[in-house]
Amino acid sequence: MDRTKEKELAILKAATERFAQYGFAKVTMDEIASDVELGKASLYYYFPAKEDLFRAVIQHEQDEFVKAIGKIINKDISASKKLLLYVEKRLEFFEELLNLGTLNVHSFSNTKSIYNSLFEDFNSQELKLIENIIKEGKKNGEFKKSLVDDVPLVILHALQGLRFRVLRHLKGRGSDNKHVIQLKKELSLFIKIFLEGIKA
Amino acid sequence: MDRTKEKELAILKAATERFAQYGFAKVTMDEIASDVELGKASLYYYFPAKEDLFRAVIQHEQDEFVKAIGKIINKDISASKKLLLYVEKRLEFFEELLNLGTLNVHSFSNTKSIYNSLFEDFNSQELKLIENIIKEGKKNGEFKKSLVDDVPLVILHALQGLRFRVLRHLKGRGSDNKHVIQLKKELSLFIKIFLEGIKA
Repeated sequence: MDRTKEKELAILKAATERFAQYGFAKVTMDEIASDVELGKASLYYYFPAKEDLFRAVIQHEQDEFVKAIGKIINKDISASKKLLLYVEKRLEFFEELLNLGTLNVHSFSNTKSIYNSLFEDFNSQELKLIENIIKEGKKNGEFKKSLVDDVPLVILHALQGLRFRVLRHLKGRGSDNKHVIQLKKELSLFIKIFLEGIKA
Repeated sequence: MDRTKEKELAILKAATERFAQYGFAKVTMDEIASDVELGKASLYYYFPAKEDLFRAVIQHEQDEFVKAIGKIINKDISASKKLLLYVEKRLEFFEELLNLGTLNVHSFSNTKSIYNSLFEDFNSQELKLIENIIKEGKKNGEFKKSLVDDVPLVILHALQGLRFRVLRHLKGRGSDNKHVIQLKKELSLFIKIFLEGIKA
């Protein structure tokens, strides 16, 4: 890893910790610069604005999540187990994002467009992951051969849907844990029954 | 039916047509009064504000929907068929609400609280309907006896979730039909697989 990449990762790590602890609005670029022993000007060389840094943090989290699921897909376990693990990891990832205060960032103006482009890309990555798992399960006889092409999409959308439902109730960081616990229960029951429905 | 109730229904009917055709913002109380041949003062006796009238329209639609599903539940058909019909009718109901411009009503201030109280009540009615169907299916041996109590809730929340997902993309009345068609496909696939997953 070259020095620039290394420095960038150190900045991301520091920023992630700051955002998670204090929320986007309260964190300053000065603090992050000092965490990684950089001058403010140098930090701005890497990230021209706090919004860019935040976006990079989210992007990094998403990449790590996709990588983690990729590893699970390569494991020597059943496709059903892979799908269950995916749902579990996805919830953990979502909780991490919550902790990063993704809900409180509505305060900065162009969040929506930042999110849209970030999440669109992430969506298609997720869809591919689910497609892989379903394909594998159809191939190895675990899942029905008759499953139509839209099944992965419906899984993704149902997971997103259950999450959006809960998101509406969440006011801020970590403050509504009971909703997350309820979501966990529902996701786990949903995927269990859905697996039962697609198995050969 | 007494005259007051009759008049009220006539007002609701006229208002529903107006809202569906022109949207909440563009409809005036004068127009509705004239539709049902009432003086404006008399109309205000029934509904003190346009918001009250709109709320009554939504409430009426919800009541009719719950009644329609109640009839389906009393039919001599399988619990699976009932659940499928419920999902189908629910989408039609949702399309009707869309046509009424429920999405455009964000313009009036206290919509959110109006909606919240309306929808909370509706939610618990819907949950009871689904619970009835699942209970019947468990009793007559169609569904697994082992289904846990949260299954109806997960069905309701998944349906809502899939719908919310699409709602985010809809800009206004009837304008994004392709999203509704996609939703229809997903709902139908979802409930088919879910039914497969809960059947005995």
